[in-house]
Amino acid sequence: MIALWLPPILKTFLFLVVLYTATLSSKLFRKKWNPRGLHVYITGGSQGLGLALAILVAKKGAHVSIVARTQSKLEKALIELEAARQTPGQIFRAYPFALDNAESSAAALKAASEGHGGQVPDAVFACAGGSKPMFFLDMEERDLTQGMDNGYWVQAWTAFAAAKQMVRQGKKGKIVLVSSTLGLMSFVGYSSYSPAKHALRGLAEALHSELMLYGIDTHIFFPPTMYTPGFNEENRTKPAVTRMIESTDKGLTPEQAASALLTGVENGETQIVGDLITNLFRASTRGAAPRNNVVVDIIYDAIALIGVPIWRSSVDKHVLAHRQEHQEYLQKRSFF
Amino acid sequence: MIALWLPPILKTFLFLVVLYTATLSSKLFRKKWNPRGLHVYITGGSQGLGLALAILVAKKGAHVSIVARTQSKLEKALIELEAARQTPGQIFRAYPFALDNAESSAAALKAASEGHGGQVPDAVFACAGGSKPMFFLDMEERDLTQGMDNGYWVQAWTAFAAAKQMVRQGKKGKIVLVSSTLGLMSFVGYSSYSPAKHALRGLAEALHSELMLYGIDTHIFFPPTMYTPGFNEENRTKPAVTRMIESTDKGLTPEQAASALLTGVENGETQIVGDLITNLFRASTRGAAPRNNVVVDIIYDAIALIGVPIWRSSVDKHVLAHRQEHQEYLQKRSFF
Repeated sequence: MIALWLPPILKTFLFLVVLYTATLSSKLFRKKWNPRGLHVYITGGSQGLGLALAILVAKKGAHVSIVARTQSKLEKALIELEAARQTPGQIFRAYPFALDNAESSAAALKAASEGHGGQVPDAVFACAGGSKPMFFLDMEERDLTQGMDNGYWVQAWTAFAAAKQMVRQGKKGKIVLVSSTLGLMSFVGYSSYSPAKHALRGLAEALHSELMLYGIDTHIFFPPTMYTPGFNEENRTKPAVTRMIESTDKGLTPEQAASALLTGVENGETQIVGDLITNLFRASTRGAAPRNNVVVDIIYDAIALIGVPIWRSSVDKHVLAHRQEHQEYLQKRSFF
Repeated sequence: MIALWLPPILKTFLFLVVLYTATLSSKLFRKKWNPRGLHVYITGGSQGLGLALAILVAKKGAHVSIVARTQSKLEKALIELEAARQTPGQIFRAYPFALDNAESSAAALKAASEGHGGQVPDAVFACAGGSKPMFFLDMEERDLTQGMDNGYWVQAWTAFAAAKQMVRQGKKGKIVLVSSTLGLMSFVGYSSYSPAKHALRGLAEALHSELMLYGIDTHIFFPPTMYTPGFNEENRTKPAVTRMIESTDKGLTPEQAASALLTGVENGETQIVGDLITNLFRASTRGAAPRNNVVVDIIYDAIALIGVPIWRSSVDKHVLAHRQEHQEYLQKRSFF
């Protein structure tokens, strides 16, 4: 039965390969994004992924603003940034703000903009966040809400402030969110964290579609385990079963993760991944949940392989066709 | 190049077909879940999907408790439930509660339990929720937080209360969440709704893994557009471009959606879908986001097809192996 289905699928695959090779070759010659001389804003920039990324873009000649809660950590981070300086003109600044609410997230972005003549940063990397793995049944109400605050809102509010400012100033910038492998799948212990990291994925996909109205790029990064201060913090509450499930994971150093993230952004990837396992999940997000019927899934999958990119491109076209109308609409609302 | 890859993939597919046919045939003879005589608790039960589901399970002989905010709507719904009554012993009750916070979600469940000698319901269907499609840039802070409240917390708090009570009482019940096609993908207009619906997916997957420790089943439903009072409400704020993208969608009536949902639960499906399009997204969640490299994705996908179910089953085994230890752990924490 399935043997009857597969040869046409095979042909379809080959057809698509040709189609995509054509698309890809145009991509290969596209200019890469380069942070040199740009203002890069990084939340969670005092340690872990955020700091590693800050050092990386500093080495590439960017101006860097880092935001985090703790002044002392920010000061240490600035010293590391100085060591990565390429030119005397590079501006490195640090801003102590909590980012789990809309108001201070907007205030942090405003403060960093003021360091550059009021101009919103060219790229906003929302690297702040944390996880507290626990059993669902062990949780209090606030464990669940803090999971959403520290996993989702801490980035969503920055994206919210940045998108509004970028549109106001006509900046064709970049907004980069940081989800997790656990934003593509989940298992025991992550009932407060995975919802937040899945939510970021939903936000990134909605914004990717919507912010193309303004020429703003949205990216989302799905790092696996990273050996950061946050990881050590996590392990303090992590259930043993969760730890066991993760025991064969190979994590990334913050430097490896930052490098994967930046490479993805430079290459214009929408969904960015730094390891094989997460790539498997990204390429097959259906995979982690128990299947209903594998035969039907294979058939659906083959259909979707053709149908969904066509649908996606028609949606993108719809959106882009509204660009002009939407500008007028915003003007009428006196948004600018 | 790809032609070299595909024949082994083909063989792998055939191998899997044999493997899964064996698994499926055992599934086919598995006993279906039957709501007859059980206590079914339905939030959002006064209209739309919730009410249609309430009537459906009433017709199948279940006791039904419905919860919603508005007393007058609940009273009307009870009249409809009476018309579906099969036996004089069936208990139909309605409870007016807001469900967007932990406290009243727990209070609603407690009230419904008291109608059944303090026993927690056998199945909890979280159908409450709403959406307010808007442009991201048009949103105020509260539009984003209300999106999460009305899309995520309104169900998460019910799951939270139900899981705790089910475990406390040793009830091997069911918890059913209602996400959306927009929990699998997203586009312009849904930046407050999609994050919430994605978050539910993350929660369902974490709980599916975790609550098997207690024999509690977690299901999640991904309905497409439903022609409900909520849909009419949605359309009042929906951007024109969003409406256009959706204009070719074929929605479901609440009755069709309720029937698909109940069939999925009866068949023990973890992820439940009622229409072809959503099935395509479910089977290929990677599909909605722009691809990085389709050739690599096909290869990853073939690997994941084999690898992820094996991984999943090893995770499940880990979890189940901890069942006993976890009971003791809970007892030590004097959870019971």
